[in-house]
Amino acid sequence: VRYELYYWPSIQGRGEFVRLALEEAGADYVDVARRGKRGMAAMMKLLESKSLARPPYASPFLKAGKDIIGQTALILFYLGPRLGLAPRDEASRLWVHQLQLTITDLVVQIHDTHHPVSGWLYYEEQKPAAKRRSGARRTSGAIVYRNSSAISNACSAFPKRMKRFERKVPLLIALHGRVGQRPRIKAYLSSERRVPFSQWGIYRYFKELDG
Amino acid sequence: VRYELYYWPSIQGRGEFVRLALEEAGADYVDVARRGKRGMAAMMKLLESKSLARPPYASPFLKAGKDIIGQTALILFYLGPRLGLAPRDEASRLWVHQLQLTITDLVVQIHDTHHPVSGWLYYEEQKPAAKRRSGARRTSGAIVYRNSSAISNACSAFPKRMKRFERKVPLLIALHGRVGQRPRIKAYLSSERRVPFSQWGIYRYFKELDG
Repeated sequence: VRYELYYWPSIQGRGEFVRLALEEAGADYVDVARRGKRGMAAMMKLLESKSLARPPYASPFLKAGKDIIGQTALILFYLGPRLGLAPRDEASRLWVHQLQLTITDLVVQIHDTHHPVSGWLYYEEQKPAAKRRSGARRTSGAIVYRNSSAISNACSAFPKRMKRFERKVPLLIALHGRVGQRPRIKAYLSSERRVPFSQWGIYRYFKELDG
Repeated sequence: VRYELYYWPSIQGRGEFVRLALEEAGADYVDVARRGKRGMAAMMKLLESKSLARPPYASPFLKAGKDIIGQTALILFYLGPRLGLAPRDEASRLWVHQLQLTITDLVVQIHDTHHPVSGWLYYEEQKPAAKRRSGARRTSGAIVYRNSSAISNACSAFPKRMKRFERKVPLLIALHGRVGQRPRIKAYLSSERRVPFSQWGIYRYFKELDG
């Protein structure tokens, strides 16, 4: 089966977790919305469809034959055994999923450091709350401890703070480095398939929030 | 197996999703931390344990024999087939899980209407941001559409706003009513096992946020 990933074409965002899994496995897939206007139209058509019995609530979602699956962690749970990336026994598979769900919580926490009031308002409209929230994040930053795949994202949003934090989690930093050296991941990261970091995704850099 | 649920004893919170599943199935379970000081101590001991190979990050978590499982949606995914509450075929089971994950997102959204800056600060310390966030929520309140189990919670936090919204989603309101009439759920809701709504949980009522 050729997998079809549907996600916003100009940000890494939540779609990046799925892209990394597909790339690591060398899977046959299409990043549909990055194929230009037609791809975006195809994504919006599915998102707004009223005839789908099991519609995804938002992107990213994955189309695999007739299956359409939303929710990032669920997509990974679905792909894991199919791509040979997850353990086979139930308890271990559920454990990997539990870690991914905790990473999902972390992603919301990070996103909300710059958009604590609403994702529908500009950052500039919620700067004071963002400053306070980022300060609060610092104290509970220890959550990163158990979430290695969040490292490069956190580094891009909070370079100064992460520099200090890195010394406390050497194994995590080493793991992050090793993942970046996996042959397929390395090739992917320097390819055109990789969306660059930007000021429009989840992990935005604002000097004043990097206390 | 006798299930052990570990969750804060004085709030419904995320634990309530698990309590409702266990009650509907008439399962043999203990709500450990509600057993008083000893129960709380047992929960904290597990949460702070350094010897568990697969530690839950936070409560609620479930102990089923040797399995310890964190993340509300995952606990429900685990219990579903065991309690006969979820469909058997993979696609349907994943669909139910997808819905629960979207409800999980909604719970964060609701919690953050009164704590947009940080869960570590009092509501009074983040009132202006909370007011703006609750206003923003109104425009995107349509997410409740697809999440029937969130209804009674939303009603307790936003009674005025929900009154207006109810007219738009009659089927959802009817479904919510039917669930409350299920014999075991009905018995549970009027029992001492049910934690009452309070100002300390996820769904708090603040007059000024119910615009």
